[in-house]
Amino acid sequence: MAKISVLGAGSWGTALAVVLHKNGHEVTIWSIAQDEIDMLKKEREHKDKLPGVKIAEEIGLTTDLKEAISGRDMLVVAVPSPYIRSTAKSMAPYVEDGQLLVSVAKGIEEGTLMTLSAILEQEIPQAEVAVLCGPSHAEEVGIGLPTTLVAGAKRKETAELVQSTFMNEVLRVYTSPDVLGMELGASLKNVIALAAGMADGLGYGDNTKAALITRGISEIGRLALKMGAKYETLSGLTGIGDLIVTCASKHSRNRKAGMLIGEGYTMEEAMKEVKMVVEGVYSAKAAMELSAKYDVSMPIIEQVNEVLFDGKSAKEAVMDLMLRDKKPEHDDLEWN
Amino acid sequence: MAKISVLGAGSWGTALAVVLHKNGHEVTIWSIAQDEIDMLKKEREHKDKLPGVKIAEEIGLTTDLKEAISGRDMLVVAVPSPYIRSTAKSMAPYVEDGQLLVSVAKGIEEGTLMTLSAILEQEIPQAEVAVLCGPSHAEEVGIGLPTTLVAGAKRKETAELVQSTFMNEVLRVYTSPDVLGMELGASLKNVIALAAGMADGLGYGDNTKAALITRGISEIGRLALKMGAKYETLSGLTGIGDLIVTCASKHSRNRKAGMLIGEGYTMEEAMKEVKMVVEGVYSAKAAMELSAKYDVSMPIIEQVNEVLFDGKSAKEAVMDLMLRDKKPEHDDLEWN
Repeated sequence: MAKISVLGAGSWGTALAVVLHKNGHEVTIWSIAQDEIDMLKKEREHKDKLPGVKIAEEIGLTTDLKEAISGRDMLVVAVPSPYIRSTAKSMAPYVEDGQLLVSVAKGIEEGTLMTLSAILEQEIPQAEVAVLCGPSHAEEVGIGLPTTLVAGAKRKETAELVQSTFMNEVLRVYTSPDVLGMELGASLKNVIALAAGMADGLGYGDNTKAALITRGISEIGRLALKMGAKYETLSGLTGIGDLIVTCASKHSRNRKAGMLIGEGYTMEEAMKEVKMVVEGVYSAKAAMELSAKYDVSMPIIEQVNEVLFDGKSAKEAVMDLMLRDKKPEHDDLEWN
Repeated sequence: MAKISVLGAGSWGTALAVVLHKNGHEVTIWSIAQDEIDMLKKEREHKDKLPGVKIAEEIGLTTDLKEAISGRDMLVVAVPSPYIRSTAKSMAPYVEDGQLLVSVAKGIEEGTLMTLSAILEQEIPQAEVAVLCGPSHAEEVGIGLPTTLVAGAKRKETAELVQSTFMNEVLRVYTSPDVLGMELGASLKNVIALAAGMADGLGYGDNTKAALITRGISEIGRLALKMGAKYETLSGLTGIGDLIVTCASKHSRNRKAGMLIGEGYTMEEAMKEVKMVVEGVYSAKAAMELSAKYDVSMPIIEQVNEVLFDGKSAKEAVMDLMLRDKKPEHDDLEWN
């Protein structure tokens, strides 16, 4: 049994807190928002973000960051990516030497193009940092549907500790040393989900979507490889697996926004309609910057950017993808 | 413009004949069944197998194999996999030296464990053999929804010829030298689709299905690699791409059969209900034989076999997959 705090009371943080409690750990949820914590204390359910999932009485609820951090064996960092750096700055004074942080959020910081674990390591250098991600709707994890995740860390022992802590009979956790590959896959998938949504909105079928998913992970993979990630990771649960879940889901905000754009909405109209932050729109920019920085061709991400920011029609973008030169599928494979 | 015959008037053969005609080629469809050819001549539509897709008057229809083969620049072999060897034997006397055969069927021969292109090469050694596959419901290709395929051949020129012949503004064709990888992915995907269907039938969610798809392509990849195929191919359109289409589709017979089994039907009851050949049931056996022959661990395919042939319940099979030992995601990645 470990003492664990989950920082952030969104759907994913809440679902993971419920899992950890079921696994027998002593769990506290921290949120910066007093009204959210008050509501959770009263309702013991996050009716907005994770309806139908009971938050047990034994799960602590607090807005006191120092209390949430002190003496904990593990801190699960589940705040939205735009707040990671500020949260890390606030956490830094309380984090002990070697205390374990598990980043479960997804994103790439604008400007610096840093992954979230890299931000945590920069702001809290005394911490041991791991990541946990994979194909996982919080709604399904919350009600105990069979799910797989990957625990990533530089040190094997750290990854295995995260694995043991989360794994149970419906949550299978693998380990991986390729933290960078995991985070790139998790972040950039949202851009491809926008493209998949556009195809759906245009009335295209499963063939088109499967092609976008496959070619999408291939271009993310090219970039990730050049940045030092491993090919296997992009072909795995946190790469193609997470991308499949995101592109298939009716609940994905990114896919939904893409669908609306495919149906003829502008990016602004789509974001207004979806009402929440559409991460893919921000990641699309970061992906283009990475593509230029590492000199990697990323045709799908380029077309998504043109649709989002240059007023290109989604239909024209898909047609431009279909009509590119005749090419081999993989440049590296040799002919006899 | 080329003279092309499509051998086999199933949904895929018919859809490809329509594509080739639209691309400006002189096209003939051959079927062994006189009543099928008579019906097509009368209806100019395959109402059973590809409803809503008109077969133009200029497309020839014949049961005369010699006529269908003689003087053709390309023969598209689209007969169901169990009839490939017998069809090849009948074709052999008429095929000219270097005549191009494009195999578009999928499967592995029982007993010999040979792929279909290997059977064609064995029975018709004077032919030049290529393959064409990818994430493609015939129904969607027939009505011109954007689709990607891969043309595979040992010789680059052959693959590029197939690419030029099929490619158009809604059908993007890539090339690849890895014929074996393409055929293994296309054949073994149906076994994973059975597993994905079982998960659906058990009421599990997108997380479970994405995990099965991802881990499924990973074990197919391990086998294919050991057999000499390339990793990239299994991560590409004919591997993960085709698997995604098959597992997502409501029309896939393999997924449907799996769903019924997940709901509690026996394999026999499920096959009776689906009414057509469920290829995955046969491929499941072949996959187990290949797994033993090449000494590759294939846990999902093993569980599918136990459900199909040993009366194990689908729920127990999924649980056994979830509860396996704590493992790294990829054995080959090194820790610092």
